[in-house]
Amino acid sequence: MRDVAVIGIGMTKFGELWEASYRNLFVEAARAAMLDAGVDRLDSMYIGCMSGGLFVGQEHTGSLMADYLGVAPIPATRVESACASGGTAIRSAFLEVASGMSDIVLAGGVEKMTDVDGGMATYALATAADAEYEGFHGATFPGLYAMIATAHMAKYGTTSEMMASVAVKNHENGSLNPYAQFPGKITIDGVLSSTMVADPLHILDCSPVTDGAAAAILAPVEVAEKLGVPAIVVRGIGMATDTIALHGRKEITHLGAVEVATKKALEMANLSINDIDFAEVHDCFTIAELCVLEAMGVYAPGKAGPASLAGETKRDGKFPINPSGGLKSKGHPVGATGIAQVIELVKQLRGTAENGRQLANAKRGLAQNMGGSGGSSVVTILEA
Amino acid sequence: MRDVAVIGIGMTKFGELWEASYRNLFVEAARAAMLDAGVDRLDSMYIGCMSGGLFVGQEHTGSLMADYLGVAPIPATRVESACASGGTAIRSAFLEVASGMSDIVLAGGVEKMTDVDGGMATYALATAADAEYEGFHGATFPGLYAMIATAHMAKYGTTSEMMASVAVKNHENGSLNPYAQFPGKITIDGVLSSTMVADPLHILDCSPVTDGAAAAILAPVEVAEKLGVPAIVVRGIGMATDTIALHGRKEITHLGAVEVATKKALEMANLSINDIDFAEVHDCFTIAELCVLEAMGVYAPGKAGPASLAGETKRDGKFPINPSGGLKSKGHPVGATGIAQVIELVKQLRGTAENGRQLANAKRGLAQNMGGSGGSSVVTILEA
Repeated sequence: MRDVAVIGIGMTKFGELWEASYRNLFVEAARAAMLDAGVDRLDSMYIGCMSGGLFVGQEHTGSLMADYLGVAPIPATRVESACASGGTAIRSAFLEVASGMSDIVLAGGVEKMTDVDGGMATYALATAADAEYEGFHGATFPGLYAMIATAHMAKYGTTSEMMASVAVKNHENGSLNPYAQFPGKITIDGVLSSTMVADPLHILDCSPVTDGAAAAILAPVEVAEKLGVPAIVVRGIGMATDTIALHGRKEITHLGAVEVATKKALEMANLSINDIDFAEVHDCFTIAELCVLEAMGVYAPGKAGPASLAGETKRDGKFPINPSGGLKSKGHPVGATGIAQVIELVKQLRGTAENGRQLANAKRGLAQNMGGSGGSSVVTILEA
Repeated sequence: MRDVAVIGIGMTKFGELWEASYRNLFVEAARAAMLDAGVDRLDSMYIGCMSGGLFVGQEHTGSLMADYLGVAPIPATRVESACASGGTAIRSAFLEVASGMSDIVLAGGVEKMTDVDGGMATYALATAADAEYEGFHGATFPGLYAMIATAHMAKYGTTSEMMASVAVKNHENGSLNPYAQFPGKITIDGVLSSTMVADPLHILDCSPVTDGAAAAILAPVEVAEKLGVPAIVVRGIGMATDTIALHGRKEITHLGAVEVATKKALEMANLSINDIDFAEVHDCFTIAELCVLEAMGVYAPGKAGPASLAGETKRDGKFPINPSGGLKSKGHPVGATGIAQVIELVKQLRGTAENGRQLANAKRGLAQNMGGSGGSSVVTILEA
């Protein structure tokens, strides 16, 4: 396999973007990434999108976006793994470059979620669960993650304050990110007194419904050198699956797909988790960030909550998590999320994170993207 | 890139399969393919599906199918390019094996289309068109292909009889395929006297709405040799895009994505179209088969209709097309179609096509899969 680097990044602001359409969002992000890389052509592209069909009545996203970006007739493939669709696009683009088939490949992601009403958005998101055993019976993602949170509290003594500390830290980081949907700072008391969505999860434990797009351009390392752009090297990439339904798991507080995807990525990179300086992880709910850190081996089971409350995952803590603001503050346009995580890694590794949220020691970063209640996960390790 | 072969194939019967669910269909096809290849593990898989969201309320297909096939935690990615989703799965699996990342990769496809009413099926399929400029204004695929047919008739003198001859030939072939949805033979008069759907296309010019799944297993050529299964080698693979909307094309009778994808696949194989012995092509409507043959360079523009009427594309003609029965007779579960085309190639190249539809001289075959009104296409060339 050839060595592959990320040579360009671009994204839209995340938010309720009434004035932008599905296609406009993607094109804006893709053009920004091409400009950043200094390339005027693409050989192929992959677009992560969870449900163009249910959100905007549009499938065949590859053809649409190649057309509107002005790059047809290049191959353009939509990939989907629910909220891990963006990570999947990175993996597919990586494989196409690594194989030698193509040199300059765009990995993008997009979701236009606010053109439907809230009930439809909740329904569309719930199609990431097991339709026959969860969705048809009324299970939604706040409900599924509430069950995980309840089990985690019962098993390990995790508290609502510990979960709230994840949201507070991510909003603190997101307040410094000009692309964030909700850059406002919040407090633990604010989280605990916010509306209960699915006990024990308050609305400020939940990531929002968001419009947005993001794009990264991958190429062989030598192409980065020719173009004179910093080569942020893909050291490892791993993807894994688990049961789609929560009830199928032996232990619902353990995210098996995250564990396996992390191990695969670390093995490929020939690194251990302690060699990683910081990470962007999939905090679709505050409890998710805690379970992810435990599945990745950053903390032993039950230890992530106390560590978060103690500030260990802040930007100046011993293992900074979600310096971008995460899904919680930056926003969660599901197909774009995995790409936006990689964009934050690239900014931190280039030393160009905005507004003073640059980390002091950022040589190796890890992005962990997740689908559903943990039915799939993609982990990517980048190095400056 | 490593040399890649198809080492196993499996599919369900195509039809209105009321007793089978989305997940059951895929698992049946995937298990048949694994049995055929003689493998008891997979390293990764790709699943082509156009719209699990709109047809069965289920996205996150990769996780679902890995779970129900019993192969989790392997990576499982859903890929989508409308009706070319199956071809896209073949291309992605090819790249993963060629890159060296994985050895045994399943490329599958599935669509469960008959669990919704006819209006919803037509709507779901129309999301392969440009939602904002075609779909929202009432355009459906019979309507779009009727415009192509009308233009082709006006420009080249193509007749309804010529188009009907495509359907008659494909049903003749499909009558010998035990997996076909509509194996009944039909006549030119029968086509011409059938219900008009979108002038000039009669209902017997149209492929049906179908449930079904198909799977192929790809591996390095040396793995095929170790397993003792015939290595059907992937000589070339090409994918291309075009404008998603029909009105964006310079000439609506010309399928640019098919032309480019064919050229790419032939270039990779170092072959010309005359080196190909037979092909499975995307006859979603009878006019599509004629336009595809012209875009591929098998016939000059306007010459495919007379050639079809003269019998040149029959099994004993000079360029046999759709020996499986094609989409028209075999059925068209959209995500599975591109895989089913590859399965027919493998059967013909192994010399195991059922019921006497085996071609006399089948050393190299080509599969051409298409999305929408030609907004995307994938072409795969296999050799015995």
